[in-house]
Order: sequence, then structure tokens, then C-alpha cells
Amino acid sequence: MKIAQQSGDIAIELAKRQREIGVAEFFSRNRHLLGFDNKKKAILTTVKEAIDNSLDACEEADVLPELIVEIIEMGPDRYRVVIEDNGPGIVKEQIPNIFAKLLYGSKFHTFKMSRGQQGIGISASVMYGQLTTGRPARITSKIGSKKTAQYVELILDTQKNAPKIMKEEEIEWAKDHGTRVEIDLEATYTKGPQSVDEYLKQTAITNPHATIIYTNPKAEQIIFPRATDVLPAKPQAIKPHPAGVELGVLINMLQWSDSRTLQAFLTNEFSRVGGDTAKKICENARLLPTSRPKEMSREQAESLMNGIKATKLINPPTDCVSPIGAEALEKGLRKEVNAEFYSSVSRPPSVYRGNPFIIEAAIAYGGQQPGDTVASVLRFANRVPLLYQQGACAVSKSIIKTNWKPYGLSQSQGAIPVGPITILVHIASVWVPFTSESKEAIAHYPEIIKEIRLALQDCGRKLSMYINKKRRIATEGKKRSYIETYIPHVADALIELVELQKSDDAKIRELLAEILEKHRGKLEDIEFDPEANEEFDEEMSKIGKEQETEDGEELNDDD
Amino acid sequence: MKIAQQSGDIAIELAKRQREIGVAEFFSRNRHLLGFDNKKKAILTTVKEAIDNSLDACEEADVLPELIVEIIEMGPDRYRVVIEDNGPGIVKEQIPNIFAKLLYGSKFHTFKMSRGQQGIGISASVMYGQLTTGRPARITSKIGSKKTAQYVELILDTQKNAPKIMKEEEIEWAKDHGTRVEIDLEATYTKGPQSVDEYLKQTAITNPHATIIYTNPKAEQIIFPRATDVLPAKPQAIKPHPAGVELGVLINMLQWSDSRTLQAFLTNEFSRVGGDTAKKICENARLLPTSRPKEMSREQAESLMNGIKATKLINPPTDCVSPIGAEALEKGLRKEVNAEFYSSVSRPPSVYRGNPFIIEAAIAYGGQQPGDTVASVLRFANRVPLLYQQGACAVSKSIIKTNWKPYGLSQSQGAIPVGPITILVHIASVWVPFTSESKEAIAHYPEIIKEIRLALQDCGRKLSMYINKKRRIATEGKKRSYIETYIPHVADALIELVELQKSDDAKIRELLAEILEKHRGKLEDIEFDPEANEEFDEEMSKIGKEQETEDGEELNDDD
Repeated sequence: MKIAQQSGDIAIELAKRQREIGVAEFFSRNRHLLGFDNKKKAILTTVKEAIDNSLDACEEADVLPELIVEIIEMGPDRYRVVIEDNGPGIVKEQIPNIFAKLLYGSKFHTFKMSRGQQGIGISASVMYGQLTTGRPARITSKIGSKKTAQYVELILDTQKNAPKIMKEEEIEWAKDHGTRVEIDLEATYTKGPQSVDEYLKQTAITNPHATIIYTNPKAEQIIFPRATDVLPAKPQAIKPHPAGVELGVLINMLQWSDSRTLQAFLTNEFSRVGGDTAKKICENARLLPTSRPKEMSREQAESLMNGIKATKLINPPTDCVSPIGAEALEKGLRKEVNAEFYSSVSRPPSVYRGNPFIIEAAIAYGGQQPGDTVASVLRFANRVPLLYQQGACAVSKSIIKTNWKPYGLSQSQGAIPVGPITILVHIASVWVPFTSESKEAIAHYPEIIKEIRLALQDCGRKLSMYINKKRRIATEGKKRSYIETYIPHVADALIELVELQKSDDAKIRELLAEILEKHRGKLEDIEFDPEANEEFDEEMSKIGKEQETEDGEELNDDD
Repeated sequence: MKIAQQSGDIAIELAKRQREIGVAEFFSRNRHLLGFDNKKKAILTTVKEAIDNSLDACEEADVLPELIVEIIEMGPDRYRVVIEDNGPGIVKEQIPNIFAKLLYGSKFHTFKMSRGQQGIGISASVMYGQLTTGRPARITSKIGSKKTAQYVELILDTQKNAPKIMKEEEIEWAKDHGTRVEIDLEATYTKGPQSVDEYLKQTAITNPHATIIYTNPKAEQIIFPRATDVLPAKPQAIKPHPAGVELGVLINMLQWSDSRTLQAFLTNEFSRVGGDTAKKICENARLLPTSRPKEMSREQAESLMNGIKATKLINPPTDCVSPIGAEALEKGLRKEVNAEFYSSVSRPPSVYRGNPFIIEAAIAYGGQQPGDTVASVLRFANRVPLLYQQGACAVSKSIIKTNWKPYGLSQSQGAIPVGPITILVHIASVWVPFTSESKEAIAHYPEIIKEIRLALQDCGRKLSMYINKKRRIATEGKKRSYIETYIPHVADALIELVELQKSDDAKIRELLAEILEKHRGKLEDIEFDPEANEEFDEEMSKIGKEQETEDGEELNDDD
């Protein structure tokens, strides 16, 4: 052993075992990183990836999306997931890479809001499907009405992270253009929260321009018809903003840049950096604007970072983010949640760490929603529903930090309010910040929490106006009916007290009713206190009881 | 637009945007998948990866590990992490790939217990360090006492997922052999749970053969000396077991196999499948043993899966798993946790989904541990501490499901018990199953939970024997002191009652003490009931009070 250590034999031996690990191999072993270690999540992730692609493609092509989703039970714990869209279709050459190559896509490198952010995509579902069932994925695609459709059966070669085509042919397809994906996989189908049914319903809310036709494993068909014919504005790709750039990324950018001077580098590579701002940054960084980016050292890059931090910058452009819009959001919510009152708001754009974002919120109150349960919370990021990790999410934190009592709900300390209400929050951003542990809980950036709370308060205020008005009307109605119930008694009492004629009974009641009418205007302006209502009840019933007692005594006296 | 759709222009345009995404690019954007989206976790992950490598290397080389760990504060939120070991060192050619290439390593492809399971490794820390500070990692390595040491400064090229050497030279180094890693990174250093300090202390418990010398940012040096000179047994690589293989993996294995027949394939590729078992599997699968693996269809592979499931198989070999051992585990716990009683157990090997695993547990009771707080729970997987996600872990579930009251602790329904106790659970396995959402919570396989509970009950029983004995001794001591306190009074009472001489007082006390001695043996055998103790107290004090009252009255009578 000692000799081995001296000569380094062990190190040499160990070195022989070192090898590259393929990306697909890595992810097939570490499936939990992609959401596939859990059979219930597997079906959800597959539906999500396919729908994201379909909606994105339709919007790129300015087509109002019509999605067909089918989940078919193939056996115990085995399902076929089918998703078909009317989008632009996929050219023949790209089909294999898009569906059967991990880390291949179009959205990763552009700096704009998009549904898929991670860059894994549908290939992970194809891989998971073949690992658990051995069956290839089946893709049908047509790019124009004058073309035939491509039909491809393929699997992902996990050793090479490359597609392997098992079958391909041209077929006739009735659709003008679109894509159809079929994947068989080992999965669990359930209803309830965190189910495909719930996912599609929520997707329908934040994509009111899309029609979704869904057939579940029980062969029940559920249609989510579109509520608007207006396509959302397309987000525009922008350059990164200097406030958000990390030192190591900056060093890389300097290395790769074609700009000959630091001044040009700053104005070319970043958004919202004009000539003056670039000069100021260089001054604050104590660097010459004529420095050559490729020749800058690490220390100089660090000085540049500090120069950027010390310079006042204009916020990044926000057309890279496309909100749903308050009106469309409310339409979406109206069609999926049965309530008596709706309110929605779309906040102006804001920034966290150089990344533009927009918060939108909506609420649905009353109707068939149960009043004694905790509020239903719907969370979305870039129009995509987040079904997991609600407790850890910045949305939950913002809801809890908001005081809902002035808005007519009850709420314990540090808890989600209780009442017949659905609260919806949507964050649209170039880069949605998720927490370390999860891809479904939004990280607690103070800028984001602040915006969510402002949006919630906006909706809450409108809610409380509605609730107060409703209460006033109810209270008035109650008071009126009290008064109407008691007018006869009051009339009788008056008659006795002031020794009026019983024949005047009718007149007195009329008079009292008149007085009521006169005061009705005033009643509308009074904010009735529910507790005052109770006091009123008590007084009335006391009067009633005294009445009874007196009657009783009188009766007794007769005994 | 319509023309574009007909001719497929949009699809063609979209196709141009499709690109490959580099692995390193992907992970630098999705840092949360690696534990680097959080500055506190960043430092912990870096320390963990480096220590895993050092311990693994020392054990491969049969060297008792001596690790030097330094965390140096370089500025606000910036730390230098240094880890040096006395292992076999790394050959010059391998240094760049091991430290600056993601998905490169030696443990991923072998089927045996190992600390690092994911295959990411130290390269992620190097990448994170350079992204946040711009500084390269600095590696020093020496493979034999007759060699010079290699010194390398390198970064990870994120576009290519390849190392880029900034500097390299040969230097003199006093050590005979070993590796030293220095990484600067943006991080947060804290004390308390989920801190580096806690991580190292727990690592010292489950690696009692290692000495760790730790200098924290306050320049305090903490030494964890080894408690044993015995190296753990080396786990042996085994072939996969048929019970654990997935359909897609089986299909791949059939494709890649060199075996000419199905019979040979089964006996060659799997562990514990001999000729007879292979024949039975083929029978149950309704396949000819002479079938050619490469020519088998998907349906045939599925039949083979079913055949495997229908055949009784011997459990896999367990030398792929190397437990710590009850004795070593207790030694480790003793040196790090101050208590009055320790107990440990190492269960026999078991299997979940074809993967061998061993559960070990230990407890430390009493001493300086506070008695009114919830039990301290330490969890380990393959000797590595798990600091996060305790609530979701199978270990917690097993502790909660176990009834600790018979063992002398208090415990609410569905909760961890309360008491001055540390509970340690270690799972050693070829493949430790983590939950979907986390790499630190063990998945709730019934086989695993059962084994953990059996281990806990074993320790619990020993604990209750200790506690009962302790209680008995205390109670006896108490009773004895009662008796000794009251012997004088009893003596006096006897003297009065039977009109003995006061001069006999001494004799009587002697007699009573003798009687006490005679009965002492019997007292040891009686399980004293604490409540009986209280009754005894009450009686004695009553007698005392009566005495006082009489005395008082007597005094009063004298007034």
C-alpha cells in the first residue's frame, strides 16, 4: 500500500474510472428533478409541457388556439396522453430533436416572457414514457393546408441524448395545420386538486382566448370555450438589463462581445443604456470608455459591476412581458368560477433584480362557493397554473400579510382568510424566480410581494364596497320587515296610549308606513353595524316578551 | 397570414430558432436544481461535495482520512472554502475534467453504495463560484511522496461544458499525497441548524474513522478527532437485480447486450440469477431461452418483465452496501453528543424495489440535553448528513409512528417525542430513494419505514431498561433517605408506645437500620410506583403535622 501511495498507483487506477455521464442518462436517473418520480405528477407534467408548446406555437402564428386533450386509460397505472392543436405545425426535420432530445429548444436563449422556462420540455415526457412502457411517442404534424402531414414514431436514445426514429411516413390529415402528440406512460390519474382536470380548468382561466376540449379517462367530455377572440400581445425579446447581470455572466459577455470598446459594449449588449449612461458607468467604474472588452481582467470586470451598481439606470423596457389584462382575466374567471361578484386588476410593470415583471390579480366572491372554508387560491406564472408548494409561495405570503377583515372576510393571525372567495394571482415575467426547492413556489422578493399586495388590496377594496352595499340592502330589508311586522303593534300601542279610535287603526298604519318611506333615503346612507342589528333584535324581542308577560298576568288575574 | 399558414412559412421561421442548450448553460440558469439558488445552501453544498470526494478517495486508498476545512470571510457575502485531504491525490490529466466539467465522474455507472449519487459533483460549485465572483478554483494535488504537486487554476466554460485552465504549474508541497481545493463564492455563513458547523459535526458522527480539523470564519478552530482506526468495509459493485429493473431500461439492456441467448442474458446481466432461475423466468414469460436478445420486440420485453415479476427471486447480494456498524456508530455519537446513555443497532440488510439497503439507528439520552424540548433528530444517507426537509422524510414518519411512551418519553399524537434525547437514523443503500421535491427527504417506501421502526424499537427497549433501572435506584434512594430521616421519629414513637428507656434510643435506631438493610435486597426487586411514593410522602407528613399540633397544644396549654 505504501509503495502504491508513493508511486501514485491508486490515483492512476481511480483515474481510469472517470467517465462522462450523458445528459439523458443523468436525467433518467434523477427524474425527480423533472417531476417524474411520482406517478401523479408524471401525467400532469406531460400535459403541461405539451399544452405550453401548443399555446406558444398558436400565439406565434396568430391563431386562436383550439386544443384537444385526451387521457385514455390503457391499463392499471398506464395512460395515453393525447394533445392536438391547430397551431402552425412543425417542419419535418425538427420533429425528432424537439420531441426526443433533452436541452433543445427555442426559448432558452431569448430574454422574453415564455411559458416554458427551464429548457427541458416535452422530450422528458417522451423519455419517461418509453422508460416505463417501452412505447415510442407518436407525432403527427402538418404545416400548411396544401401539404401532407408527417407521422413519426420515435424514442430518445438515452446514451446519446439523441432521437431514434422507429417509423415515419406521410399521411393524409383532415386538419389544415397543427400538431398532435401521443405518449403512453406509467402514471396515476386522480381528480381533485393537483389533477389534470384542475390544471386544465385553471389554464382556461388565464388563457381566455383558447378553447380546450377535454376527454378524461371516464370518457366524459368537458369543453372550456374561449371567452374572447383577442389574442394576447406578443412579448418582445429584449436585451438583458445591467442591474440583473451577475459578475461571471458579465465576464463571459465581455469575452464574447464583438464590440471594440467598453462604451460600445455597454450600449450594444444591454437594454436602456444610452451613450450618457454608458459614460457614467465607466466613470463610476474608473475605467476608460475606450477599454477593449476582450482584454479586460477579472478585477476590471468587478470594477465595472460596481460602476453599474453606482449608476442610476432607467428601468428595463416592459414589452418583453405581456399581461393577460384585467378585462380578459375577469372574463376567464367568470366562465370557470361561479360567483356573484368579480373584480380584477393588472398592475403597471415593475422590476426585481433587473427583470421586468407584472402582477395581475382577480377575485370571485360568493355564489356557490362555501362560506366556511379557507379561500381558494389560484397561482399562475406566465399564464401557467402552479399547483404545488402553495405554502412556500410568495403569493401565499402576500395573501397572509394582507388584512382581509376590512373587506368582509374572517382571518386568523398568519393565515389565509376564510370565506366564499377565490383569489387569483398571476406573475408575468422574463424570468420567474422560483424557490430553491421547487419549481412551483415563487421566491419571496420584496418587490414582488409588494406588488402582489397592492393588487390584492385593489381587488379587496372593490369587494368591500360590494359587500357593504349588499349588507346595507339586507339590513334595510330586515329593518323594514321588522318595522312592517311591528307597525301593527306600534299602532295598537299608540291607540291605547293616546286613546285613539280603533277605527283609526288603518290610518295610523298608513302614517307609520309613510314615515318609514321618508326615512328610507336616510337609511341607505347609514353604514349599519351588524352588532347594532343584534341589539335591535334583542330590544324588539324584549318588548314582545313584556307584552306576553303582561298578557299572561292579565290572564292569570282572571283565574 | 393565411398564405403563410398554407405554405408553412411560420413553421419554417420557428424552426430556425431551435437550438441546443448546453448542459452547463442549463444548470447555470437552473441553479436551484443543484442547491445554489440560496446563499446559505451554496456554502453547504460546496463543503458537502468536496468532503464527499475526499472521504471516498481516502477510503478507496485505504487511508484513514484527515480533512482540513477552512471557511474564510473575504468580504460581505463572500467566502473562501478550502478543503484539503490526505487521500491518493488526482492525476494531472484528470484534474480539469473532475473539477470543471458537469456530469463527469466515476460513481454514476457503478451499482454500489456511494456518497455522491447524483453525478453533478464539485464542478457545480466551481461554476457557481466563478459566476458569482469571477474567480477560478484553485486545485493542488499530489499523488505520491516521490512526486511534485500539481497546482491548477481553472474555470468551467459554460458554453462548452468544458474546463478552461487559467494557470498550471508544478510546486513543492509538504504533504505526501492528497488534494486541496479552494473555491471563492458568494454565500452566507450562519451557525445553528443547517449550517456548516452542524454539517461537519454530524459528518464526524457517521465517519468515526475520519479526523476533521475545522477553522470557521471567526478563525476558531474545532477539531473532530477520529474515534476508531478501523476503516469501513468497501462496498462491492454488483449487477442490477431483476426486481428493480424498469421496462425501458430492460429494453435498452437487451439491445446492448453481447449475450447470444435470453438465458445467457439473464444470468450474465443480473445478480442472483442462476441457470434454474433464468429458465423459470423464461417459462413464466412464455419465451424461448434461446431467443436472441437483440431481436426481441417491445411486446416480448414486456412479457419478460411479467415473467420476472411472476418468478420467486433470491434477494440481491448485500456487500454492495457497507454499514457503519453498531459499535462504530455509538463511538461516533459518544464523541459528539454529551449524554448519560447510548444505544445503537445495525439491522440486517433488506430490499426495496430490487435495491439492497441497511438501516442503522442510535440514541443518546440524558446528560446536558434539555428535557423539555422535542427530540433532536439526525438523519443520514450513505453516511452523509441530511439537513433539510426533515418533515417530509421517511425517518420522521417512522419516528412519529413509533410509540415512545413505553420508553419513558412523552409524545403527542402524530408528533416527534419530547425529552432529553437525540435519535439518529442512517440508511445505507445502492440507491437512496429521495422524494420528488427534494434531495434530502427519503421517500416513504413501506419496506424502509418498517426497518427504521424496528431499529428504533430496538434502541427504545434498551433505553427503557436503563430508565427503569435509573428510576428504581432513585426511588430506592429516596425511600431510604425517607426511612433514615424518620428512623429517629419512629424510634421515639416506639419508646413512648412501649415505654422503652430513652437510653435505649441508640439501640433502637441501630435495630431499625438493620431491618432496613435486610429488606434492601427486596427493595431492589420492587418496581416502585412513583405515585406510591407520593402517598408515602403524604402519610409521613401527616404524622409529622399531628406531632406538631400536639406539641403546639401542649405549648398552648402552658400559656
